[in-house]
Amino acid sequence: MSRGLIGIDWGTSSFRAWRMDAGGQVMDIMGDGPGILAAAAAPGGFEGALERAIGGWLSEGQPVIASGMITSRNGWVETPYLPLPLDAAALAGALLRHPSRFGALHFTCGAVSDPDGPAPDVMRGEETEIIGHLATGDGADGLFVLPGTHSKWARVRGGRLTGFRTVMTGEIFAAMRDHSILGRLAEPGPFDAEAFASGVRAGAADGPLLGRVFAARSLALMGRLRPAAIADYLSGLLIGDEVAQEAARAGDRAVTIIGRGDLADRYRIACAGNGIVARVAAPGMAQKGLWNIARKAGIV
Amino acid sequence: MSRGLIGIDWGTSSFRAWRMDAGGQVMDIMGDGPGILAAAAAPGGFEGALERAIGGWLSEGQPVIASGMITSRNGWVETPYLPLPLDAAALAGALLRHPSRFGALHFTCGAVSDPDGPAPDVMRGEETEIIGHLATGDGADGLFVLPGTHSKWARVRGGRLTGFRTVMTGEIFAAMRDHSILGRLAEPGPFDAEAFASGVRAGAADGPLLGRVFAARSLALMGRLRPAAIADYLSGLLIGDEVAQEAARAGDRAVTIIGRGDLADRYRIACAGNGIVARVAAPGMAQKGLWNIARKAGIV
Repeated sequence: MSRGLIGIDWGTSSFRAWRMDAGGQVMDIMGDGPGILAAAAAPGGFEGALERAIGGWLSEGQPVIASGMITSRNGWVETPYLPLPLDAAALAGALLRHPSRFGALHFTCGAVSDPDGPAPDVMRGEETEIIGHLATGDGADGLFVLPGTHSKWARVRGGRLTGFRTVMTGEIFAAMRDHSILGRLAEPGPFDAEAFASGVRAGAADGPLLGRVFAARSLALMGRLRPAAIADYLSGLLIGDEVAQEAARAGDRAVTIIGRGDLADRYRIACAGNGIVARVAAPGMAQKGLWNIARKAGIV
Repeated sequence: MSRGLIGIDWGTSSFRAWRMDAGGQVMDIMGDGPGILAAAAAPGGFEGALERAIGGWLSEGQPVIASGMITSRNGWVETPYLPLPLDAAALAGALLRHPSRFGALHFTCGAVSDPDGPAPDVMRGEETEIIGHLATGDGADGLFVLPGTHSKWARVRGGRLTGFRTVMTGEIFAAMRDHSILGRLAEPGPFDAEAFASGVRAGAADGPLLGRVFAARSLALMGRLRPAAIADYLSGLLIGDEVAQEAARAGDRAVTIIGRGDLADRYRIACAGNGIVARVAAPGMAQKGLWNIARKAGIV
C-alpha cells in the first residue's frame, strides 16, 4: 500500500509542508516552519529543522519531495535550472534524489529563462506552483503573476512554461520606503485605496520609473498626499508600472494571480486599473504541483 | 563704486561661494563649506556657518545672493517655487531679500513643473545653473541634464526653462546596491567600462525597470558578471534607462550635460550608447547664473 507523499515548499523565509494520502488528498498541514536562512543556522541544520517541523510524519520509505530555495546554493542541495519550455514531466525526470537520515528526499529543479542572452532569469519554487495550477485542469494558456518580494510573471503555452521574468517590486519598494527621501515624510496608516489607485495611474504613465516615483515626494511636499498615504501611493506606482509593462503593453486582457492575501489584492486592483481582468487562482498550488511532479516521477 | 557680488550655491550637502568683482569676474572661490544639513546643526546655525566659511568677504552693503536648498523648508528661509516657463528676469523679479547680521541676503526662488497635475516636480538651484549656461551665449534651446543624487532633465525653448523632471537614479542606485539582494554579491573595484556599457544596453531594453535590474543578480549567479563589475552594470542600467526614456524616446539627438567629473562621464557614455551626442557644459554655471540674476535684479 502506498505511503502517500510529503510535499514541502521551502523558501528563503518560509516553510510549508503537506502530508498527502495515496490519492493526493491533504491529511495534515504544517504552515509555519523555518525558512532556509533560519534552518541553516539552527542546531542540526536542515535535517534538524525538518525533524522539528514534521518529524512525526517521517518514516522509512516515506516519499518526500521538496521545492523552493531549499534547492539553491544556500539550500540543502543545489539542483540545476532547467531550460524552457518546461512541464511537469521534465521536472519529474530531473528530480534529484538525496540521502538523509529520513531516507531519500527528492528535490525539484529550478527553471532558467534566456541563460545565454542579455537578461537571464531564474526561479525556484514558482515553476512548481504553476505546474500545480495547470494540473488542476482549471488552468489555461496565458499570463500568470506570482506576487512576492520578487514577483514572477510567467507565460504558459500548450500547457508548458515558455517564459518568465522576475520583477523586484517588493524588495525595491521596501528599499525606497526605508532608505530614500521618498519615505522620509511617510507615516503608517491603514490601506488607502485612493492613494493606491492614484499611484497605479502614475505607474502606467510614460517616462523613467525613477522619475515618476519622485511624485511620492513632491505631492507630499505640496500637501496633496497625506503622510499616511505616501507608502500606498508608491506601492501603487511600482505595481502599476509592473502591470502596465508586463501585461498591458504586451496586449494581455487577462492574467491569473497565483497567491493570496493583501499582496494579491493589490495586484488585482492594479490589473483592473489597467483594464485587465485578473482572477486569483485557488489556494494550494505548491502542494498540487509537488503531487503532480511526484506522480509523474513514479515516487508515489 | 560697486562692491561686486558674492554668490553662494548652497545645497543639502555642499556649499560653494564666489567673490566676484564689479564686472562679474571671479576673484576668489570657497569650494568646501558645510551643506545645509551640517550648517543647520552647527553653532550659530546658518549665520555662524556663513561667517566661518566666507566671513572675510562680508561687509556692510556687500551684495550677496544664494541659491539651492538653502531656500527650502529646511534651509535659512523658504522661498516660493516659480511656475514655468521661467527665465532670468522672472528669477530676478522674485528674489527674496532677507536681513542678517551681514546685511541683506538675497535668496532665489525654486521652480515648479506641473504643480496641479498628476506629476508635480520641483527644483532648487538647478534653475540657476541653467540660467547661467544660457547667459554664456553658448547655450541654445534643447535638452539639458544635471546629473546628481537626483538628476534633473530640463527642456529650454526660446531661452526659457519650459519643463523638467527629477529622476532619482543616484539615490535609488545606492539603495539598491546597499539594501537589496542586487548588491549582496558585489565587490568594490575600479570602473569597469564594459560592464557599464552592458548595463546601458539593458537600460535601453523593454520591460519593467525593476525586472531588468534583476539581471545584475542572475548574471552574477551564472558567473557572467564578476563581483567587482556588478555595481557598474547596475549603474549603467539605471542611467541607461534614464537616458533612453528622457532623450532617446523623445527623439532628441543631442543633450547638454551640466556637471563635472565621474558622474557626468557616465551620462556622456550612456548618451553615446543611445546614439545621442552629449556635450559637457563649461564649468561654473551656478556662479554665472547667480551673477546674471543679480544683474537683472539691479543688486550689482
